[in-house]
Amino acid sequence: MVEANIKISAIEYCLGEKKESGFDLQKDNPDWKIEDIEEKTGIKTRWIASKETTAVDLACKACDKIFKKVDRNKVDTLLFVTQSPDYFLPSSSCIIQNRVSLKTTTKCFDINLGCSGFIYALSMAAAYIKSGFSDNVLIVCADTYSRYIDKNDRTNRPVFSDAGSATLLTKSYSKRVGPFEFGTDGSNYDKLIVKEGAAKSSFKKNNKPTLYMDGAAVFMFTMSIVSKSIKAFLNKEGVVKEKIDMYIFHQASKVVLDNLQRVLELPDDSIYKNIRDLGNTVSSSIPIALKDADMNSTIAHEELILISGFGVGLSWGTCLLTWNKLL
Amino acid sequence: MVEANIKISAIEYCLGEKKESGFDLQKDNPDWKIEDIEEKTGIKTRWIASKETTAVDLACKACDKIFKKVDRNKVDTLLFVTQSPDYFLPSSSCIIQNRVSLKTTTKCFDINLGCSGFIYALSMAAAYIKSGFSDNVLIVCADTYSRYIDKNDRTNRPVFSDAGSATLLTKSYSKRVGPFEFGTDGSNYDKLIVKEGAAKSSFKKNNKPTLYMDGAAVFMFTMSIVSKSIKAFLNKEGVVKEKIDMYIFHQASKVVLDNLQRVLELPDDSIYKNIRDLGNTVSSSIPIALKDADMNSTIAHEELILISGFGVGLSWGTCLLTWNKLL
Repeated sequence: MVEANIKISAIEYCLGEKKESGFDLQKDNPDWKIEDIEEKTGIKTRWIASKETTAVDLACKACDKIFKKVDRNKVDTLLFVTQSPDYFLPSSSCIIQNRVSLKTTTKCFDINLGCSGFIYALSMAAAYIKSGFSDNVLIVCADTYSRYIDKNDRTNRPVFSDAGSATLLTKSYSKRVGPFEFGTDGSNYDKLIVKEGAAKSSFKKNNKPTLYMDGAAVFMFTMSIVSKSIKAFLNKEGVVKEKIDMYIFHQASKVVLDNLQRVLELPDDSIYKNIRDLGNTVSSSIPIALKDADMNSTIAHEELILISGFGVGLSWGTCLLTWNKLL
Repeated sequence: MVEANIKISAIEYCLGEKKESGFDLQKDNPDWKIEDIEEKTGIKTRWIASKETTAVDLACKACDKIFKKVDRNKVDTLLFVTQSPDYFLPSSSCIIQNRVSLKTTTKCFDINLGCSGFIYALSMAAAYIKSGFSDNVLIVCADTYSRYIDKNDRTNRPVFSDAGSATLLTKSYSKRVGPFEFGTDGSNYDKLIVKEGAAKSSFKKNNKPTLYMDGAAVFMFTMSIVSKSIKAFLNKEGVVKEKIDMYIFHQASKVVLDNLQRVLELPDDSIYKNIRDLGNTVSSSIPIALKDADMNSTIAHEELILISGFGVGLSWGTCLLTWNKLL
């Protein structure tokens, strides 16, 4: 019941304008051991949005790219996943609707989710299309986490990149998206958080939004809850793990990907990694990985793909895809 | 195709703790003509959240009320509509999941929409249930717009209240929700906006979030786009306006409701108003009106109800309901 006759027909993305290397980190932080950090994160390059570039700008850039391949007038629903909106209100999706000239009959809204956001948006798109509410859903993900990160933040700065992605979901003759598995554990809401800037701290003086991550806690969550959830999901759906041609996890960091592979006992060539040159692009990381894997033929038509996103919330989601070559 | 075998089975709500009268406005603003303002807004009382109360607190209060009537363990999906989240991240819905003890298998996310938000969330709930992704969806709406409003703001302070609502959607034997009609006009995104506080103004010094409304522009939007959209929707669905037992519009202000009634040529007893003692409660205004109308028997079992939300974005949505008595 939780599969749908829909497919991902196109994906495009863009990255923050400024390429940032280990050398750049070292300049600001002479005491950091860059080699040790890069060994753990697996990340050599990050992409940082310039001061004036917002998530909406990245979103529109990704949309402009996808509309070179698909007709914007077909889009009837726009789901925009972000945790760095331009304004508290209005919804950034409305601004995008106008900037990229979508029809005024388009359903538009923002979804606040992070690294699990693409999987959630995919389930919404699937539900909208399957139930007849929509025909063509554009999922746009964009974030500028760099705005929340200090230049001396050793936990977060080496990890996060700014990026935007646009993914078009359309009807399909066969079931290509789903089933899904989801979960939420709000008891650990404060393990990955920006405490300042919104309602909860509005009465405080020092209100500069700053990302805090309890790296160990988030790592443990991935190793325990996320890996268990994936195992239980495959078991429930009767899919043996060897049947899956490629596992595309949220590109959190090398240490997370390596250990997920170890805990789930997956062979080397079944787990996709493009984190080295891109960094952790939050909700865009899975669509970007799907696009890259499709482009470089790491995934092929009719192959079975598992995608899984997890992080801030804490929140997680997993989905099976029967792949089709992208436009 | 855009109807669904689902129904609204329960609604509960709560209001901001501080009751605010015209007398309170006058104290802070001796030059305001309170009678003239009240004549236009139709609002005599507003409900303002105390300094420490956030949208999440109001949301949890409304949830606690609904869980006296329905089993919280049945909820498999939580949609939280807000424009005043506790944090930029994580999603407030994850915090609510933990605070009101929903299962960790619950799908949770925040939707950023204002006065049209309930209608959008309703369509998502309908799509999730109809397509088999969910069985019981809890739509929670909560906002503390008062946080964005200065005590001397003559446009907004007389209008907005803080409130939270919880609405349970479940399967039904007959079609009770839908069809729907939606629209977005981001070219007027700046007619109702909080310019400060989020990404777009993050590099500026004076960054106190403040609500700005171009009252005339928003009023014109309601009279033109919204009223045309409702007429076109009824025409498309082949429903003559006399067949509708009650019109429950977003409770924006008396002048908006009166003029919508005039433009749509609706008889006096077919349009619901509870704005006088409640104020404009943003995304909660329609669920609160439905609850009140059900309680005081203004709407009855099997009656045909039209609900329509419109505002910030600009964004609008309309839906037909075949009413069933609430739990």
